[in-house]
Amino acid sequence: MSKTIIGVDLGGTRIRAARLDARLSIIERHETLTRAHEGLEPTLERIKAEIGKVIPDNRDDVLGIGISAPGPLNPETGVIVSPPNLHGWHNVPLGDILKDAFGVPVYTGNDANLAILAEAAVGAAKGYKHAIYVTISTGIGGGMLIDDRLLLGRHGLAAEAGHMVMVAGERVSTLELEAAGPAMAKRARTRIEAGEQSQMVALVDGKLDEINGATVGRAAQAGDVMALDIVERAARVFGMGIVNLLHLFNPEIVVIGGGVSQLGDLLFDPMWESIRAHCIDDAYWRDLVIVGPELGEDVSVIGAATLVITDGGKRSLQDVV
Amino acid sequence: MSKTIIGVDLGGTRIRAARLDARLSIIERHETLTRAHEGLEPTLERIKAEIGKVIPDNRDDVLGIGISAPGPLNPETGVIVSPPNLHGWHNVPLGDILKDAFGVPVYTGNDANLAILAEAAVGAAKGYKHAIYVTISTGIGGGMLIDDRLLLGRHGLAAEAGHMVMVAGERVSTLELEAAGPAMAKRARTRIEAGEQSQMVALVDGKLDEINGATVGRAAQAGDVMALDIVERAARVFGMGIVNLLHLFNPEIVVIGGGVSQLGDLLFDPMWESIRAHCIDDAYWRDLVIVGPELGEDVSVIGAATLVITDGGKRSLQDVV
Repeated sequence: MSKTIIGVDLGGTRIRAARLDARLSIIERHETLTRAHEGLEPTLERIKAEIGKVIPDNRDDVLGIGISAPGPLNPETGVIVSPPNLHGWHNVPLGDILKDAFGVPVYTGNDANLAILAEAAVGAAKGYKHAIYVTISTGIGGGMLIDDRLLLGRHGLAAEAGHMVMVAGERVSTLELEAAGPAMAKRARTRIEAGEQSQMVALVDGKLDEINGATVGRAAQAGDVMALDIVERAARVFGMGIVNLLHLFNPEIVVIGGGVSQLGDLLFDPMWESIRAHCIDDAYWRDLVIVGPELGEDVSVIGAATLVITDGGKRSLQDVV
Repeated sequence: MSKTIIGVDLGGTRIRAARLDARLSIIERHETLTRAHEGLEPTLERIKAEIGKVIPDNRDDVLGIGISAPGPLNPETGVIVSPPNLHGWHNVPLGDILKDAFGVPVYTGNDANLAILAEAAVGAAKGYKHAIYVTISTGIGGGMLIDDRLLLGRHGLAAEAGHMVMVAGERVSTLELEAAGPAMAKRARTRIEAGEQSQMVALVDGKLDEINGATVGRAAQAGDVMALDIVERAARVFGMGIVNLLHLFNPEIVVIGGGVSQLGDLLFDPMWESIRAHCIDDAYWRDLVIVGPELGEDVSVIGAATLVITDGGKRSLQDVV
């Protein structure tokens, strides 16, 4: 296969388009600001312009265009539903728009699904057939590789790990609402307002509503007792979410990305404690690998290209890379 | 393929062995009591004797032996770890023992995994490629068919839906510990001991420690207010477990079996309420089918035989049935 693949990363801040070869190496790459606030049409034109810079004129050389887009989206139809960070986007049929514009097959996927594809194709999970990617930042997202194929489900809506119900008693909550950045920030504000001391107050110049997940992380890394406690509790709950994924998927490797994963051992140590404490058998974690991602800011364009060469995630990775 | 398949159901009460044709129709079937309390060796001899009654002398006609066994077990090695209802069984290499005895390939699987295989091959989930089986009785077990293949994971330990952590606050608990029969029975005893009235007291002749899940179910069906309340609460939590499976697997159909599923709408109505209330998008349940199983007491021998023809669950069902 000597064809070329176009990978597009549509983000709230940047649009990036790349041309990759069949081995998923980036040949050429362009990017511009998304500027979604300027309206849908100008943003669509910017996407087309970036693709236009990297796509060969001879479309027979192009296997397809893969797009990483913010969820919720429908990977079957290529419709972007209504992403919070793409103002004015409501049910935009991006797949069809680009297919009409460029005359090649178009595949869409969300970032966590594409991240596991990319990491398994050429990154941290290369060579593994049962792999999970979990991203923890302002939300929690997941992508699963099952026996070398992307888990999609009936409508491509599978792998929504962050929306697992984790507190099902009087109160109902989810993994994301309990363990992601905003939950940590909210706990910090509540405790500070109740009179506890923390370096976080100084970090935000006393403006408590500016405390976010990153603030808690920075304070924890600086040794702030309250921030350390909040991170540890969130990491334990996050670990229980990982326990659920281990019991359900029995993977060989879990790749953990996203801003909160930068906390390193502050996240990983309590997470591992939960795993050891709550798995029903140590066979689930004895030889389990948990690592950070290997691919940096190009993960989405590589994942989008991997989506193309696996026919939307339906083909086995080892058949194509 | 005109070969014959042997399906074995090793249960705490009964051993059943059947000869099936390549279309998974049962040709011949024998059963005997397990009598595990008499010791490991006599039980193993009974298993071999039952298989001996149905296996053709010409082993070339036999594609393999499939065994449904109580978990925990290792489907890769065929080792039965230590099932609570098989007294004296500790790390018994049942797969190897039967391979040596009969000279044909042997495959082992747990009951919930084999149930989804059987129901998808010839039962309630026939024709569906994304299907989940959840059994709710004294425990909660799961089996998942993903794009027409059994979800196994690295060591075949996947699909343990009952062990999902569902309460992750001060207290840590699982779906099974919150929603299965024993949890309902325990809640009933606690409330009766606290002075609440219930028909359940009469149902067990005042012996409160004899209240089990079935007692709660019978009382609920008879209109007992406390039992109805307990079933409804458990069913809501069970529904949240289903929500997690919908978010993670996005299936077309969920088959719900096990003793508690006999409660019908008393279980299904609150379960559906949880699904509608807690799925992040109605695309997860709008066209979702939730039904009871179609296969009766032969589900395990049929599932065991399906395991053989799918090479341990690795091949796509539609390629073989």
